[in-house]
Amino acid sequence: MTTTLPSPELIASFINIVGSANALTNPADLAPYLVESRGLYKGTTPMVLRPGTVEEVSRIMKLASATRTAIVPQGGNTGHVAGQIPREGKADIVLSLQRLNRIRDIDPVGNVIVADAGCILADIQKAADDNDRLFPLSLGSEGSARIGGNLSTNAGGTAVLAYGNMRQLCLGLEVVLPTGEIWDGLRRLKKDNTGYDLRDLFIGAEGTLGVITGAVLRMFPKPLGHQVAFAGVGSVEHALALFDRASSLCGAALTGFELMPRLGVEFTAKHIPGVRDPMDTVHPWYALIDISTSDTAESAERMVHDLLEQGIVGGLVENAVIAASEDQRKALGHMRESMSPAQKPEGGSIKHDVSVPVSSIPAFMKEADVAVMRAMPGARICSFGHMGDGNIHYNISQPVGADKQAFLDRWREMNAIVHGIVAKYNGSISAEHGIGQLKRDELVEVRSPIEIELMRRIKHAFDPAGIMNPDKVLRAD
Amino acid sequence: MTTTLPSPELIASFINIVGSANALTNPADLAPYLVESRGLYKGTTPMVLRPGTVEEVSRIMKLASATRTAIVPQGGNTGHVAGQIPREGKADIVLSLQRLNRIRDIDPVGNVIVADAGCILADIQKAADDNDRLFPLSLGSEGSARIGGNLSTNAGGTAVLAYGNMRQLCLGLEVVLPTGEIWDGLRRLKKDNTGYDLRDLFIGAEGTLGVITGAVLRMFPKPLGHQVAFAGVGSVEHALALFDRASSLCGAALTGFELMPRLGVEFTAKHIPGVRDPMDTVHPWYALIDISTSDTAESAERMVHDLLEQGIVGGLVENAVIAASEDQRKALGHMRESMSPAQKPEGGSIKHDVSVPVSSIPAFMKEADVAVMRAMPGARICSFGHMGDGNIHYNISQPVGADKQAFLDRWREMNAIVHGIVAKYNGSISAEHGIGQLKRDELVEVRSPIEIELMRRIKHAFDPAGIMNPDKVLRAD
Repeated sequence: MTTTLPSPELIASFINIVGSANALTNPADLAPYLVESRGLYKGTTPMVLRPGTVEEVSRIMKLASATRTAIVPQGGNTGHVAGQIPREGKADIVLSLQRLNRIRDIDPVGNVIVADAGCILADIQKAADDNDRLFPLSLGSEGSARIGGNLSTNAGGTAVLAYGNMRQLCLGLEVVLPTGEIWDGLRRLKKDNTGYDLRDLFIGAEGTLGVITGAVLRMFPKPLGHQVAFAGVGSVEHALALFDRASSLCGAALTGFELMPRLGVEFTAKHIPGVRDPMDTVHPWYALIDISTSDTAESAERMVHDLLEQGIVGGLVENAVIAASEDQRKALGHMRESMSPAQKPEGGSIKHDVSVPVSSIPAFMKEADVAVMRAMPGARICSFGHMGDGNIHYNISQPVGADKQAFLDRWREMNAIVHGIVAKYNGSISAEHGIGQLKRDELVEVRSPIEIELMRRIKHAFDPAGIMNPDKVLRAD
Repeated sequence: MTTTLPSPELIASFINIVGSANALTNPADLAPYLVESRGLYKGTTPMVLRPGTVEEVSRIMKLASATRTAIVPQGGNTGHVAGQIPREGKADIVLSLQRLNRIRDIDPVGNVIVADAGCILADIQKAADDNDRLFPLSLGSEGSARIGGNLSTNAGGTAVLAYGNMRQLCLGLEVVLPTGEIWDGLRRLKKDNTGYDLRDLFIGAEGTLGVITGAVLRMFPKPLGHQVAFAGVGSVEHALALFDRASSLCGAALTGFELMPRLGVEFTAKHIPGVRDPMDTVHPWYALIDISTSDTAESAERMVHDLLEQGIVGGLVENAVIAASEDQRKALGHMRESMSPAQKPEGGSIKHDVSVPVSSIPAFMKEADVAVMRAMPGARICSFGHMGDGNIHYNISQPVGADKQAFLDRWREMNAIVHGIVAKYNGSISAEHGIGQLKRDELVEVRSPIEIELMRRIKHAFDPAGIMNPDKVLRAD
C-alpha cells in the first residue's frame, strides 16, 4: 500500500468519482477530519472523499484496490481510540460517510429501520420515536455519532443492560469490501443460520475489513412505564448487592444501572451548568437506576419503590430520590453523561474503558485504587460507568496543582498498572470504545498469540492488499 | 486430506491418545454415531474417538493436522442437517465430545456457568435451576443435545423471543483449532471490544473451523410469574396482529409466541399419548403464548388476562384457555414440542426450517400454501413454529394413502418451491438448524457469490488443510 502522496492523476480520478464539490483537499477543509475529540491523535491526508451513494463508495474502493491506496472510513468522528483518524505522516485518504445519511425504510410492524451508515444516531432515535417505537442505543455523543461508526465500534452506552450493544441491535448489514464489491447482507431476519456469521465480523472491526454503508436496525415497542432513581450507597460492594437485587426484581425491565463516585458528582455540580446534587446528604457512591416497563406505568413505579425499600431495609441504600418528572429524569441522565466532560476543567485525565466480570467489580476497583494511589499520590480517581455490564470508565484526574503535560506523559504507565489488574480478573482493556490506534500495541500484549494470529488471518483473508484502514486494531506488516 | 482408510499405525496412534477403551472401531459400536434422527444420512468412519480432556482433543487435532486426516466433531447427535455425521464413503474420524461433560464452574452472582462442550443441555438447565437461576435455551431434544452442538448450530428453541439464540447466551468459548492449538476465549465479560469477534465466528460454524470444547454461558434470574395461554385464532393474519399486541403489552416479558395449525393439534391429539385439545371449539390456527415476569407473579397474570381480553374484544381471539397449573403449562408445551414427532405416524414429511421478516409471515405462508398445493394436490401442510422470531417449520405431510418413498423422493422439488418463495421475502432457508450436508448445495444458490467467497476465505484461513468437518456448510474443493 502506498505511503507516498498519490499522483495528481490518481487524485483527479478519485475526485472524478464523487465530484469536486465532495472531494476536499484544502487544508482548512481537511482539518476537522484529522483530529479526534481528546486531541491525542492528529492525522494527515491528501484528501477527504464524501461519496453520496453506495455505488460511489464501491468505485472508490475499486480504484483504491487497483492502486493500493489506503482508505480510512469515517463517520461522525466521535471515536475515542483514533480508529477513524488517518495515520500521521502517511497518505491515507479519508472516506467520509456523512453524506450517506438517508433512512431507507421504516417498518414499525416488523420493528426494523433500514438506514444508511452516515445517519446520525439521534436521527435514528427520532425516526423510531416518530413511529411510536424505541431505538435504544443511547450515548453522550448521539447528536453527532453516526450509525456506521456505532456499528464499527460495536457501541454500548447506557441501555446495554436491557437491549444489548449495537451488535444485538443490528439484523443485517451492507458492506463495501476492500475490492469494491458490495456485500448485500441487509436481512431483516431474527433467525438465520446459513453459514458463517459475517455480520458480527464486520461489526466491531473498526473499518479494517470493509466499509459499512447500510444496516437493518431493530426497534422496540416504547415502554409505558419509566422510572429513574438516584441512590446514595456506602460502598461499591453495596452498589453491587443493590444491582443484584435490582436484576432479580426487575428482570429485563432493568434498563440501566450506572455507578458514580462522590468526586464525579462534585465535578459535575461544579462545572456543568444546570447540574446539581439532588440530595442534601453526602455519600461515597451513587447508583443511577433506570427501570422501564411495557405493560403499565404502575409496574415501573412499584418496582422502583420495592427496590429502594428493600435497599434501605437491607442497609444497602443510605438515601435516595426518585425522579418525579421527565425533566428530572433527564437532569439525572445529564449528570451521568457529564461525568466525563466534567473532568476536563480539573486538568488532565487519564482514561480507561475496562470491563471485568460483574461480580469482580468491587475487588478490581479496590486493587486498582491502591495501585494507582501508590504510583501517583494525590491522583483523583473518578471511576464511573455501566456497573450492570461490568464496564467501568476508570478515569484518573491529575493531582490538584500538578503540571498537566507531566501528568499526561504518564498515560501509558498508568494504563499498564490498571490494565495489569484488569488482566488478573480476566477483564477487557476496551469494553466499548474499541482498539483503533490508541490500544493497538497493547492488544498484542493482552491477547494470546493464537488469538492475534487468527485476527491477522481474517484481516488478510478480507483485505490482502492491506488498504482498509491500515494500522488500526492490528499493526500493518 | 485423506479419503482412504488410515493406516494401522495411524489408527494405533489415535487410539494411543484416548486409550483403547475410548476408541471405538467395532461396527456395532460405531453404528449409533453414523446415523441422524431423520435417517436421511448415513456416514462411514474407521473409528470414533472419545477424548476425556481438552488436552486429548488438542493431541487428536495435532495428529490429524500432521497426517491430513479429516475429523468430524459430534455432540449429542441430534442435529437435523447431518453436520455431525461423517461423509459416506470417506474415512472421516468421528470425535465425540460426550465424555467432556463436566460443569467447570457456576457463579450465580455473576450469572455465568462454565461448562465442557459435552454437557447435556438438560443438565445445564438443571445446574442453573439448582442455583436459583434460569438457563433459558429450551428445545425438543434437550435431554440428549449437547452444549457444543447447540453452540455450533447456534440453536434457537422456544425462548428466543426473550433471551435470544445460543449466540446471545454465550459470553466466551474455548476452541481447539484444526492445528491442535487451543484458543482460550473463556471470558465472562458482557462487554469486550478488543478486536475481531472470533466467538461469533465459531458459533454457528458447525464444527468446520475448530472444535468447541468449553463455553461460558449466561444465566438469568428465575422469573416469579409465569403464565401460558392457548388461543384459537381465525387466521395467520390474526395471529400476527395478536403477536404485535403481545409485544407491545408484555415487552421483554413475552417469552414465547408459537403458532400451530389445526392439523398439527389434531395430529398430536391423535398420536401423542397424554396430549389432548384443551378447548372444545375448533379453530384454524392456535397461538401458544408464554409470559414470564420477574417482579411479581401477579404482573404475569395481569398481562395474560389483558392480552386475551384485548384479543377477544379486537376480534383476534376466538377462544382461549389459560393454563391453571404448572402441569397444564407443561401439557401445552408438550403439545407444541410434539408437533414434529406427531407427523411421523402420518407417513413421510418434507421439512423446511425457514424464516422471513415477522411482518411477512402471513403473505409468505399464503403464497407457499398455494404453490405447494398446486404442485402436490392432497399434500397436508403442517406449518408451525416460532412466529415471534419469523421462524416457521414449514412441514408437508404426505397425502393420505400416498406412497411414502415416492413422496419423499420429491423432497428437493418441494424445497425448491418453498425456498423460492422464501427468497422472494428475503428470508432464510435455515433459521435455526444450520446447513450441514442437507442444505450445503442449496446455500450457494441462495447466497451471493461474494458471500460464499468470503465464507470460503474464512474457512481457508482457519483450516487450510481442510481437515475440519470437511464438506459441511461449504463443499470441500
